Amino acid sequence: MPKLIVQKFGGSSVANVEKIKNVANRIASYKRKGYNLVVVVSALGDTTDELVELAASISSNPSARETDVLLSTGEQISVALLAMAIHELGFEAVSLTGWQVGIISDASHTNARIVDIKASKIRQELKKGNIVIVAGFQGMTADMDITTLGRGGSDLTAVALAKVLNADRCEIYTDVNGIYTTDPRIEPKAKKIDEITYDEMLEMASLGAQVMQARSIEVAKKFNVLIHVRSSFSDNPGTMIIKEAKRMEGVIVRGITINKNEAKITICSVPDQPGVAAKIFGKLATAGVNVDMIVQNVSHTRETDISFTVAKNGLAETRKEAASIARTIKAGDVLVDEDVARVSIVGVGMKSHHGVAAGMFDALAKKKINIEMISTSDISISCIIKKKSAEAAVKALHSKFGLDKK
Amino acid sequence: MPKLIVQKFGGSSVANVEKIKNVANRIASYKRKGYNLVVVVSALGDTTDELVELAASISSNPSARETDVLLSTGEQISVALLAMAIHELGFEAVSLTGWQVGIISDASHTNARIVDIKASKIRQELKKGNIVIVAGFQGMTADMDITTLGRGGSDLTAVALAKVLNADRCEIYTDVNGIYTTDPRIEPKAKKIDEITYDEMLEMASLGAQVMQARSIEVAKKFNVLIHVRSSFSDNPGTMIIKEAKRMEGVIVRGITINKNEAKITICSVPDQPGVAAKIFGKLATAGVNVDMIVQNVSHTRETDISFTVAKNGLAETRKEAASIARTIKAGDVLVDEDVARVSIVGVGMKSHHGVAAGMFDALAKKKINIEMISTSDISISCIIKKKSAEAAVKALHSKFGLDKK
Repeated sequence: MPKLIVQKFGGSSVANVEKIKNVANRIASYKRKGYNLVVVVSALGDTTDELVELAASISSNPSARETDVLLSTGEQISVALLAMAIHELGFEAVSLTGWQVGIISDASHTNARIVDIKASKIRQELKKGNIVIVAGFQGMTADMDITTLGRGGSDLTAVALAKVLNADRCEIYTDVNGIYTTDPRIEPKAKKIDEITYDEMLEMASLGAQVMQARSIEVAKKFNVLIHVRSSFSDNPGTMIIKEAKRMEGVIVRGITINKNEAKITICSVPDQPGVAAKIFGKLATAGVNVDMIVQNVSHTRETDISFTVAKNGLAETRKEAASIARTIKAGDVLVDEDVARVSIVGVGMKSHHGVAAGMFDALAKKKINIEMISTSDISISCIIKKKSAEAAVKALHSKFGLDKK
Repeated sequence: MPKLIVQKFGGSSVANVEKIKNVANRIASYKRKGYNLVVVVSALGDTTDELVELAASISSNPSARETDVLLSTGEQISVALLAMAIHELGFEAVSLTGWQVGIISDASHTNARIVDIKASKIRQELKKGNIVIVAGFQGMTADMDITTLGRGGSDLTAVALAKVLNADRCEIYTDVNGIYTTDPRIEPKAKKIDEITYDEMLEMASLGAQVMQARSIEVAKKFNVLIHVRSSFSDNPGTMIIKEAKRMEGVIVRGITINKNEAKITICSVPDQPGVAAKIFGKLATAGVNVDMIVQNVSHTRETDISFTVAKNGLAETRKEAASIARTIKAGDVLVDEDVARVSIVGVGMKSHHGVAAGMFDALAKKKINIEMISTSDISISCIIKKKSAEAAVKALHSKFGLDKK
């Protein structure tokens, strides 16, 4: 059996006819080398955003079910055009939509989770020698309703197909050369990372790195799918996402992320009683607010301040909810600070090294950057700082942990 | 059980957001009256043409299978948006694609024929009280490949669904008030026809009237589906397409059509031998040429001229094929005349009236219009004339057969 590769091309890789032809050429070059290919494609360029706008012109709160019917057309257009472009190069190819593949999801429209993949039609088409072009980002409920898998869902389609088809690897093509130690637009000394663990990649994606959808990395980790993140515009190797390897142990910090899309909310003068935090965050959860970092200072009086961060998206409702909670629990004012950024260092090496946090705080202190909140996990440390200091913080940390050198 | 109506809205009725909202209002008004509704929608405005152009920018001869995957997105966008617009008015609605409905077709991509309709999902959604919005023009093969039903295929979807669901009637909404005695842009005295038989409508559609797809009228006739062709911009009654009725007998000519999309081809000096016509038209059929009218003059020598008409679409290949045939059978030159028009009169009343043809020829003669070819059927007579005389011919015939008066 020839090797099977699943390749995924994002919207920027197929943004126009010229780029679609470029992608077709790359696919053909792999076919010539004798690989079997399943190719997952996103919608052309900004198509998804344009369709969302179209829906907004009809309804301020469009039905999630119908939004999925609408959005899934974006990928369907891509796969047909890419199949045509491959035919032009003399190769056999067929396109398949999510329902044709048999990607069965739950019914959480606009953010559905895959529950099963039939893939018999893919196998059938592969057997005929076809390159199979699959519409990313979409599935179907057991009840035959169209669903979409949330932003970045094409990554998930690719990883899940690689697992189900037992592919040799999954290549994620993007408009950058791979995963970088930090955003090169902020720190030009950022270096491409050759290898990164699933855990580190997951942490970086969750903390703001945009290259891959976090959920798809979880799935890749769970099923040990080998991922290669690379550029669709060059042949250079990119970043391999793998299980932890011996040779990776020397590295303490793998990368630095920055996230400016969070706001800090502080509920002041919270009565310091058992169960009050549970009350606050229980009510927020019920209201559908996704809280990220939480900090409560040890109090020496009968009152304390509780701060937490949330996505700026939906901030107005969160602020209202927090104010209502504050009244209920007889707390004081609610302060909202949108002028913050989260800077994080990520690396599995932290587990076995002491003093990494201290090193981070020291580097920030030397730049006179004030830390407002701290949060740690096994393999990451995050600090909330003023937004205006974010770039300086990234550069200081990049240098501090030796990421400038290779 | 409340009455069930199938309504079909063409691309011009849903060309933009404003028009989609207008259609939603009309649908809601019927729901308020207590009807159950299945609504078939075409792609927004020129979407289909735009998608065809997009494919052409990738390939000069795009795969028919992939063309269907691409084109079917047009209707999928329409149904989602229309469902959203209906929700805005406070009514329940769900969209369904061709495959979700279970419209099973053969595998003749871009021009597939419906072989079966499951419709269980439609029935299920109707039972829940939903207005069901169905993507027109599309189906799926038994092998789960997406197909489209050819130009005007949404009419076919509507008529076939009306049959399968045993609907009380099928309303075809369009941008004109119904079927006219002739094209009102040519003859301003043209009158809306209140009732027309399936056979007359079929003949008029085949002979150039653009309002409804001919194949859908065949299906309506076969299953006796009551059709009402009417405007999506007014509440006025349009044209009912029905079986022949007693009260319709008085009318001899129901309407006049004009078709400028045909060319006349003449093979000169054809040896006058038995079987030569069979040879010519057999070879043309094998080459996929769809011949329309055929005229062969009685010959008094050993040679004759044979003329026929074909669609201008694909004329270059037809001309080449005819030249090759002429060489094979040792005939003379092949002449092509694109400067012709076909003018036809249609009416079931002709069957029982003599002298209708003579009346037609007389009216044309009085305007000094030369007839180049004549073809007749049970309920129509067509003449090929010079294109520049077409408008004058239509007006003369409209007056001759009393269509100006009501």
